[in-house]
Amino acid sequence: MKSLGVGLIGTGYMGKCHALAWNAVKTVFGDVERPRLVHLAEANKDLADARASEFGFEKATADWRRLIADPDVDVVSVTTPNQFHPEMAIAALEAGKHVWCEKPMAPAFADAERMLDAARRAGKVAVLGYNYIQNPIIRHIKRLIGEGAIGQVNHIRVEMDEDFMADPDTLFYWKSELSAGYGALDDFAVHPLSLLWYLFGHVDAVVTDMSRPYADRPVKEGGRRKVENHDAAHVLMRLDGGISAVLMANRAAWGRKGRIALQIFGSKGAITFDQERMNEFELYQADGRGSEQGFRKILAAPAHHPYDRFIPAPGHGLGFNDLKIIECRELIRAISGEPSVIVTFEDGLRIEKSVHAMAESFHQRRWIEIA
Amino acid sequence: MKSLGVGLIGTGYMGKCHALAWNAVKTVFGDVERPRLVHLAEANKDLADARASEFGFEKATADWRRLIADPDVDVVSVTTPNQFHPEMAIAALEAGKHVWCEKPMAPAFADAERMLDAARRAGKVAVLGYNYIQNPIIRHIKRLIGEGAIGQVNHIRVEMDEDFMADPDTLFYWKSELSAGYGALDDFAVHPLSLLWYLFGHVDAVVTDMSRPYADRPVKEGGRRKVENHDAAHVLMRLDGGISAVLMANRAAWGRKGRIALQIFGSKGAITFDQERMNEFELYQADGRGSEQGFRKILAAPAHHPYDRFIPAPGHGLGFNDLKIIECRELIRAISGEPSVIVTFEDGLRIEKSVHAMAESFHQRRWIEIA
Amino acid sequence: MKSLGVGLIGTGYMGKCHALAWNAVKTVFGDVERPRLVHLAEANKDLADARASEFGFEKATADWRRLIADPDVDVVSVTTPNQFHPEMAIAALEAGKHVWCEKPMAPAFADAERMLDAARRAGKVAVLGYNYIQNPIIRHIKRLIGEGAIGQVNHIRVEMDEDFMADPDTLFYWKSELSAGYGALDDFAVHPLSLLWYLFGHVDAVVTDMSRPYADRPVKEGGRRKVENHDAAHVLMRLDGGISAVLMANRAAWGRKGRIALQIFGSKGAITFDQERMNEFELYQADGRGSEQGFRKILAAPAHHPYDRFIPAPGHGLGFNDLKIIECRELIRAISGEPSVIVTFEDGLRIEKSVHAMAESFHQRRWIEIA
Amino acid sequence: MKSLGVGLIGTGYMGKCHALAWNAVKTVFGDVERPRLVHLAEANKDLADARASEFGFEKATADWRRLIADPDVDVVSVTTPNQFHPEMAIAALEAGKHVWCEKPMAPAFADAERMLDAARRAGKVAVLGYNYIQNPIIRHIKRLIGEGAIGQVNHIRVEMDEDFMADPDTLFYWKSELSAGYGALDDFAVHPLSLLWYLFGHVDAVVTDMSRPYADRPVKEGGRRKVENHDAAHVLMRLDGGISAVLMANRAAWGRKGRIALQIFGSKGAITFDQERMNEFELYQADGRGSEQGFRKILAAPAHHPYDRFIPAPGHGLGFNDLKIIECRELIRAISGEPSVIVTFEDGLRIEKSVHAMAESFHQRRWIEIA
Repeated sequence: MKSLGVGLIGTGYMGKCHALAWNAVKTVFGDVERPRLVHLAEANKDLADARASEFGFEKATADWRRLIADPDVDVVSVTTPNQFHPEMAIAALEAGKHVWCEKPMAPAFADAERMLDAARRAGKVAVLGYNYIQNPIIRHIKRLIGEGAIGQVNHIRVEMDEDFMADPDTLFYWKSELSAGYGALDDFAVHPLSLLWYLFGHVDAVVTDMSRPYADRPVKEGGRRKVENHDAAHVLMRLDGGISAVLMANRAAWGRKGRIALQIFGSKGAITFDQERMNEFELYQADGRGSEQGFRKILAAPAHHPYDRFIPAPGHGLGFNDLKIIECRELIRAISGEPSVIVTFEDGLRIEKSVHAMAESFHQRRWIEIA
Repeated sequence: MKSLGVGLIGTGYMGKCHALAWNAVKTVFGDVERPRLVHLAEANKDLADARASEFGFEKATADWRRLIADPDVDVVSVTTPNQFHPEMAIAALEAGKHVWCEKPMAPAFADAERMLDAARRAGKVAVLGYNYIQNPIIRHIKRLIGEGAIGQVNHIRVEMDEDFMADPDTLFYWKSELSAGYGALDDFAVHPLSLLWYLFGHVDAVVTDMSRPYADRPVKEGGRRKVENHDAAHVLMRLDGGISAVLMANRAAWGRKGRIALQIFGSKGAITFDQERMNEFELYQADGRGSEQGFRKILAAPAHHPYDRFIPAPGHGLGFNDLKIIECRELIRAISGEPSVIVTFEDGLRIEKSVHAMAESFHQRRWIEIA
Repeated sequence: MKSLGVGLIGTGYMGKCHALAWNAVKTVFGDVERPRLVHLAEANKDLADARASEFGFEKATADWRRLIADPDVDVVSVTTPNQFHPEMAIAALEAGKHVWCEKPMAPAFADAERMLDAARRAGKVAVLGYNYIQNPIIRHIKRLIGEGAIGQVNHIRVEMDEDFMADPDTLFYWKSELSAGYGALDDFAVHPLSLLWYLFGHVDAVVTDMSRPYADRPVKEGGRRKVENHDAAHVLMRLDGGISAVLMANRAAWGRKGRIALQIFGSKGAITFDQERMNEFELYQADGRGSEQGFRKILAAPAHHPYDRFIPAPGHGLGFNDLKIIECRELIRAISGEPSVIVTFEDGLRIEKSVHAMAESFHQRRWIEIA
Repeated sequence: MKSLGVGLIGTGYMGKCHALAWNAVKTVFGDVERPRLVHLAEANKDLADARASEFGFEKATADWRRLIADPDVDVVSVTTPNQFHPEMAIAALEAGKHVWCEKPMAPAFADAERMLDAARRAGKVAVLGYNYIQNPIIRHIKRLIGEGAIGQVNHIRVEMDEDFMADPDTLFYWKSELSAGYGALDDFAVHPLSLLWYLFGHVDAVVTDMSRPYADRPVKEGGRRKVENHDAAHVLMRLDGGISAVLMANRAAWGRKGRIALQIFGSKGAITFDQERMNEFELYQADGRGSEQGFRKILAAPAHHPYDRFIPAPGHGLGFNDLKIIECRELIRAISGEPSVIVTFEDGLRIEKSVHAMAESFHQRRWIEIA
């Protein structure tokens, strides 16, 4: 396969994270071509130039449409704020580029549907940046479940908590506007939903509570403004096959920094994981003598692929940014027509559909089935 | 105050636990009269005699009504299976005895109401054995919340999990019969509800899911029998003042042995606790420099009263049975008319009312308000 | 066997702890006679009376020699400060009583030797209160090692840390006087040594460092006084069979409250334990697939005898004081001539011999062999 | 400053790690020039070509001397086995290149001295790859100690344990030969020594025990061969200013994968850290109300520089390989004459001197002072 020409739109944290991945993927994995970092777009031309130099891109532009028109670009990383995803992703697909778009697809469901349509029409690879599923530990958990290590799964709990909205004195900003979405639900509950989707498949039915820890927030100019969405959301769910699940998401949970805590219960054991300690998981197996049964803390190791591509020794640990390198390689494999672990626009739409159903359940105060 | 004459009905684990408490309460606390262990009742006379000798009771009987009729008995510990609670507690109250009854009050709500009526009519102290609230750590958490250590509480999660029903090959027994109750909900979700009641007050509204990890279980004689109630229950709740809460209870959760995990989030911090490590809790306070903020693991210490009555040094640890000694002293204080931390029949009825509302919500598949 | 008559000298924390054990042992275990609490001695007669009432003793005295002369007393609990142990224990033994003496035996080795002589001459049971070995978890660890669960043990680390001397502003008091002993070494390193003795046998050779975190301490009257002993001690050791071990003891270790952390490494696995979480231990076994190997956190359970005599369900937890109840039953078994797990004066002398060798090593700045 | 030309000798794990760092350093930090990856040397030419393609180097050679002679190369990464370090590093320095050499310097002290001589003569930057000191958490711990957050440090414990030699059935290989060094002491105790050096300065005196968990090991051809060095080493130490320290290193410690556990005690608090959970540390501060004092678990955060250059949100975590990127940037800063955090050959020699003194102490069975 010829070397991929890469275009990157956006150079905030996720833009940098994509750039790091494009720079490292060949060195880490060896089994893909080294991509060419061709074109970078950032709203301001000076910033675009600076970032192109830092990130190692050949060209820089303040006009993302020029990047998309560049014939040297084969794949476009879209890392701009969510509201720009539909326009950019669709334009790139229509120009015949593959697309690697940060999650979620779009604030409005109809826009997300348009993105999927465009991907289908273009016949190009269109992937969302749900990087948590790329953790070798998560992959290994999937393998263990598939092997029956904990028997038939019957119950799941997942908590996603951070505290960036926990301080009631934080000034009102756009994240609290209704136009930014439901709040915790689409702001980050989509991450644990991607894990549930990856590990267990789709959500069938939901009942939701959403809450507002603080009714209003101070405004810089003085006075207070009413908070328009919900910093916390809690959902009872039924998954494929009747598995019961509880999803809890809270962006106002003091002390939690990047918690995505999974508890998975089966007929023969249990598995737990917390993203704040992303290099370990716990496994309980109900076998052997009862007096020695317990949750086993297992550290990330070369046997948890593809940890071995980064480090040949156990217990040394990957970082958050490494997950993006793994995702990048999966994307390249998908483009090459090889089997890969990715969240396509089709999968992503299903995730967003369940988010909207959750919000609907809250407003109707009853269970909602998801077709 | 004169020395209390104690009667004990039932000598299973809880009976033994009451006996240990009655034996130890004076030595531990000093500030109450040493109770006289007067009369013990157990279905079989030989067993009653043996246990009376072991537990240090003067008299033994196979007829609990003789114990209740004994004029030397001032207070009756009722530690028999739940279905016997109403008859025994009511008889004891009508005989003018104080009652210390294990939780829950009764399988049927109407019986629980009759128990409360009897207590009111008798004017005697009628207390339920919700011992988890007696943990010095839980008392200290209540103090911290009252002092505003984590600001205004806005969200709570509580999980109660054990694994005694986790093995699908466990034979069908009475715990899976409908007559035994809803399953996880009344079998042990009442414990975390007692903690919520103690720390935050009453439940206002609920929506519930209940699930059956295993549809049927093997029968000793061969074949399988349908499970009639639910080993797992999950509830979204609103408490007094609009606090959102999630309650999860599962008696088929492999690996959990006595987990009662609390997470309490407020406007200035958070507190966590897990009964499996009952001698510690975690406190996060959002003050000081951000670079050193974190959850603080605090070990039980003399400053967490009444830990100091057991041990003068921090970090040495109380046991589960010690909680019953504390409860016993609170009961004696209540009988003496002193301020005390107890769950009265009135409080208990409120807890059981919320349990029934949760079950109702599951059947109606919608939110239920609790009057 | 007839009921044992108990005498208790001293009513500080350890005195109370003995009293609790004597009160509870029959109720917990059933298989021993209920002891009679006969005589209590405390320096001040009023206090003696008050404590006798609290602890349930029949008689009280301010003269411990009268207690020892009491023909109703069969066994004497000696819980006074260490310097009084020799006189009281020897007098009790000479009066034909069994003795249960708190550790360590005596500040001076010669006195400890005299105690052992007295025990031998009297032919009575003479036991030291090394209660940590009574933890059902520790007993189970011994069983696991005996079964070869971690293969041949080759290396051990044990840390005992508290922080009651950690504050440099704590006033000088008797614990810092040379007459009180070496400091950390005999003040509490004897506890981990009792664990090593119980689990692995005797110490063969040692090299020691001792340190003084604070050279002097403030005196109430003003000024400062030189600290005369060492709050921290660290020892490299060789045990029976060449096992290498490291012992670390520090009573000025901020944040540690009752830490006794054991790490045991063998040819097939490892075990860890920390007294601050006395109801759990960790087991690593190098078997099965490498990708699932890890330290297993095992909660105390009925299978870890005699936990089952206290609680029939796993994960509920014993307390520090419960260990004394187990020790009390072992003492009664020893008195009855049954097999028992106790530290006799003979064992205790060996422990103290190793302590003195450690101190000698520090002064000579070289390894010392222990005969 | 002009762009640095990089040469890399060796492409095992550390070679890959250097390559990843050279590829990423500019993207992560922005504030340095993007290095040019000029020349890669690997013993086999085909492998050299393959790795040059994977790692992004322009030229490949099987003759490392050609790399050193290449005028486009300004700095040489030496990542070959330890015995080759002296020859390569000295040749590079003599050719006027800066050197980034993996630790330790050399098996023989005299060779390490020659390396330092060469560095001095060349006047070039000569740095050792002690990457653990680059962890933002470690840097923050140094800052906290400097600020007096735990007062005056008086005691330190550090454990470094892995289990790659723990299986007695592992075949004899070169790591067990005397020519490979002392065993645990120089194989990896140098890592915790680099931490002690970075945080506290030099070692003044030591007494050591070394042990051999297995006397011999199976040989592939059958039979067994005697193990010639020691898989475990334990050292009592005194550091600058009289701080007492205990160093424990064991490469046969089942269950430990990359443990470097630090415990630091001071007059006002304590700090703990474990490399197996490299994105967090614990801080105990003896201030405020005693009833809420405890070890605070602090997750890596942007305030712990330079974590912020990788990720702008707390709790997301760096990986082991990221430490090398930080080290690479420090090296570039050193080359540019800017202040930097590095271990120079001078510092490294001091570390190796203390290792040799430790081994000497073991053979002499006494304390050794280090000049």
